[in-house]
Amino acid sequence: MSDRTANIGVVGLAVMGANLARNLASREGNTVAVLNRSRGRTDALVSEHPEAGFVPAYSYEEFAASLAKPRTAIIMVQAGAATDATIDALVEVFEPGDIIVDGGNAYFPDTIRRERAVRETGINFVGAGISGGEEGALNGPSIMPGGSDESWVTLGPILKSIAAVAEGEPCVTHVGHDGAGHFVKMVHNGIEYADMQLIAEAYDLIRRGTGKSPAEIAEIFAEWNRGELESYLIEITAEVLRQNDAATGEPLVDVILDQAGAKGTGAWTVQTALSLGVPVSGIAEATFARSLSSHPEQREAARDLPGPSTATPVDDEIAFVEDVRQALYASKIVAYSQGFDEIRAGAAEYGWNIDLGAISKIWRGGCIIRAQFLNRIAEAYAEQPELPLLMAAPYFADALGRGQEAWRRVVVHATNAGIPAPAFSSSLAYYDGLRAERLPAALVQGQRDFFGAHTYRRVDRAGSFHTLWSGDRSEVEA
Amino acid sequence: MSDRTANIGVVGLAVMGANLARNLASREGNTVAVLNRSRGRTDALVSEHPEAGFVPAYSYEEFAASLAKPRTAIIMVQAGAATDATIDALVEVFEPGDIIVDGGNAYFPDTIRRERAVRETGINFVGAGISGGEEGALNGPSIMPGGSDESWVTLGPILKSIAAVAEGEPCVTHVGHDGAGHFVKMVHNGIEYADMQLIAEAYDLIRRGTGKSPAEIAEIFAEWNRGELESYLIEITAEVLRQNDAATGEPLVDVILDQAGAKGTGAWTVQTALSLGVPVSGIAEATFARSLSSHPEQREAARDLPGPSTATPVDDEIAFVEDVRQALYASKIVAYSQGFDEIRAGAAEYGWNIDLGAISKIWRGGCIIRAQFLNRIAEAYAEQPELPLLMAAPYFADALGRGQEAWRRVVVHATNAGIPAPAFSSSLAYYDGLRAERLPAALVQGQRDFFGAHTYRRVDRAGSFHTLWSGDRSEVEA
Repeated sequence: MSDRTANIGVVGLAVMGANLARNLASREGNTVAVLNRSRGRTDALVSEHPEAGFVPAYSYEEFAASLAKPRTAIIMVQAGAATDATIDALVEVFEPGDIIVDGGNAYFPDTIRRERAVRETGINFVGAGISGGEEGALNGPSIMPGGSDESWVTLGPILKSIAAVAEGEPCVTHVGHDGAGHFVKMVHNGIEYADMQLIAEAYDLIRRGTGKSPAEIAEIFAEWNRGELESYLIEITAEVLRQNDAATGEPLVDVILDQAGAKGTGAWTVQTALSLGVPVSGIAEATFARSLSSHPEQREAARDLPGPSTATPVDDEIAFVEDVRQALYASKIVAYSQGFDEIRAGAAEYGWNIDLGAISKIWRGGCIIRAQFLNRIAEAYAEQPELPLLMAAPYFADALGRGQEAWRRVVVHATNAGIPAPAFSSSLAYYDGLRAERLPAALVQGQRDFFGAHTYRRVDRAGSFHTLWSGDRSEVEA
Repeated sequence: MSDRTANIGVVGLAVMGANLARNLASREGNTVAVLNRSRGRTDALVSEHPEAGFVPAYSYEEFAASLAKPRTAIIMVQAGAATDATIDALVEVFEPGDIIVDGGNAYFPDTIRRERAVRETGINFVGAGISGGEEGALNGPSIMPGGSDESWVTLGPILKSIAAVAEGEPCVTHVGHDGAGHFVKMVHNGIEYADMQLIAEAYDLIRRGTGKSPAEIAEIFAEWNRGELESYLIEITAEVLRQNDAATGEPLVDVILDQAGAKGTGAWTVQTALSLGVPVSGIAEATFARSLSSHPEQREAARDLPGPSTATPVDDEIAFVEDVRQALYASKIVAYSQGFDEIRAGAAEYGWNIDLGAISKIWRGGCIIRAQFLNRIAEAYAEQPELPLLMAAPYFADALGRGQEAWRRVVVHATNAGIPAPAFSSSLAYYDGLRAERLPAALVQGQRDFFGAHTYRRVDRAGSFHTLWSGDRSEVEA
């Protein structure tokens, strides 16, 4: 065991860790050491997968001894205390120059803290976001590593060997230092929340507007998946809508309780955006829509609140479905634009040098939001790396311009029909807000100056000003 | 100086602290000790206000010696490090049973931390939210104290003596233990953000819809202030809109740069709501609207994005203005309902026993969101203290029912006209979401089960279920 045959190790062999270890072992040139808190899981993995040639270890000492230098280990344990404990144990047995990778779903400020602490020992610490679930871990995920440049020299080839491949390129890049990888993974998940909510609203509008069955709507999504909306989430939406429940014979979507769960990354994305001063209204509305759905006692209390008194029929079903498709695409552009805006702002705040085009490319495969669409984002950033606003890039501006009238018709329909479409309508309000020549924010500044002497700036000259509201109402320079 | 003549002390004599000290000194029975880091401010305050009978102190020892026991001091210094340093200094010279009040705008987790630390010394620490700005501090603010029951015995009469009075009742109540006061003050500010944004959208819609001048719209707000919208914010909106700029002769609101600032309490409110799983979409949209306005480079980039190709004229201006009024009232009900929902959830999370009706009463005077409307909230909680959703209480349900068709017309107009109304439309989507019999959250759960095996619940029996999506698509119990 101590012949240093392994070039990479995995600690934590639950499904994600085991699948990642198998993925690593399946690639030319990798020999994988494996360690788990309980011996049983290690033995089971090794005996079930003799083809992998795993090097099992039963203690951290043995694990360290089995790894060639610089030792490189990927931790796949629960976020929080278990991660901290595993890092501490590895630091004890590793040496300066070795590399510890946290492949879990850590909150990026924790990754920044851990990187700082581990760096003092001379060991490299890399927080790496890994997207794609269990299947991605096994067959090729999208990987978003942070950490030092030094660690990337060793880690890069290993991660490239296991990542998903999109258009010939591995879905991994060195995102930036310390917490950059987990930050970008967090925003990925936030965009995923928005994308899912937009799809859900599109489904709901078509179902309630046309009376089509889930199976019929599945065909619409399958059709959309052949056009500009082509994406994994659209594809699986068709699969879910097509599924019938064996017990009742009903469409499965009608049997599933309509209360959406969440594991917190959507909330993190919005909380971080608020600290950065970045409006991510689509992601926020998606996160709120899930929490709203999960308060049955409030929904019960609201059940009798009145809706529209007259029906809002859909005259032309084919045109309506096409309107919804365009509204979905336009809203999706806004969601991605907001997400990339958050990455831009996070990079500026934390001093990360993040290549936004490279991020869009590594999301083309392996991860949940993988889509054709990401090529358009990559092209936009290739054209103009310092793009202040993704949705204003020519391709997206054109798409929004073509779609905006349909988008308005859909929001108007939802509003008249009493169908909630919070992400569609909020994305449109964001679009109209940004393109407004003048915003009523001027009135808000006037109010703030009135009650709190917060001052205001003027359109015609520099400086900060205050009106003496409780005095003679003259203006003074602050 | 050491004859213990003062029953209350104030540390920090910038405008807020000085005004609060003068307010305290003006009330029967109070003698006020004052202390400031620099001597000059203390001397200036004492000499400018001989009528106040201040007891000046020039060191923490002197300050402590001048106070009758239990010593009670209100800190009015900057949030953050200055507050911590002042607390440390007071703890050195105070004794068990004494009371330290932080009257600044602390973030409630800091208050919880400070209360825990100070409690170990036997001294009482009280975080108290104080709203009403400089004028409120002088003439009567709304005060939201947390802290122990013991401290309230001494502090209650003093705070009641200086608080605003609304319908004969002082605008102060013992909110709950430790951080409860600063928590409630935070939500107050979040509601204030929403209220201001809604007013700004109403103004913008009327201006762009009817072409009326700011002065004419001021008259509309003044008129609204005589009805169910009666509130301080509506009142000052009329004042701001009426104001002309002396330098240009233009309406002041047209001269103010349309980029709204923020001091962070709106963001805190939304961040906390996300952690609590409470959808506060109106407050979030208001916070995002301010940050959107403050990105001139993005607004510049978006300037050429296309809007509606045809105009959306307002046929009947009087009817339109009345529609906007009703939309504003309905959206305002949603904002307050969301805010009170956050207080309810915060109380449950942190173990605070908060009387929601009492909170609505102490906001009737002194603070920025003071309004007639708060009496309706107090009545709703008096009727049903465990109300799961404020907007479903009979009075509000009626008001929403009467207003919802107008509300829809206004959102439809904004959507067709390309005028951003994020808070109006998001509040309506929240309303329609809560009253929906079935939400597409079921599809979201199906998607989550597909890509992440997150499981789902069923409408027809208990348990958690998973469909074997990559297998034979049968369902298993998880």
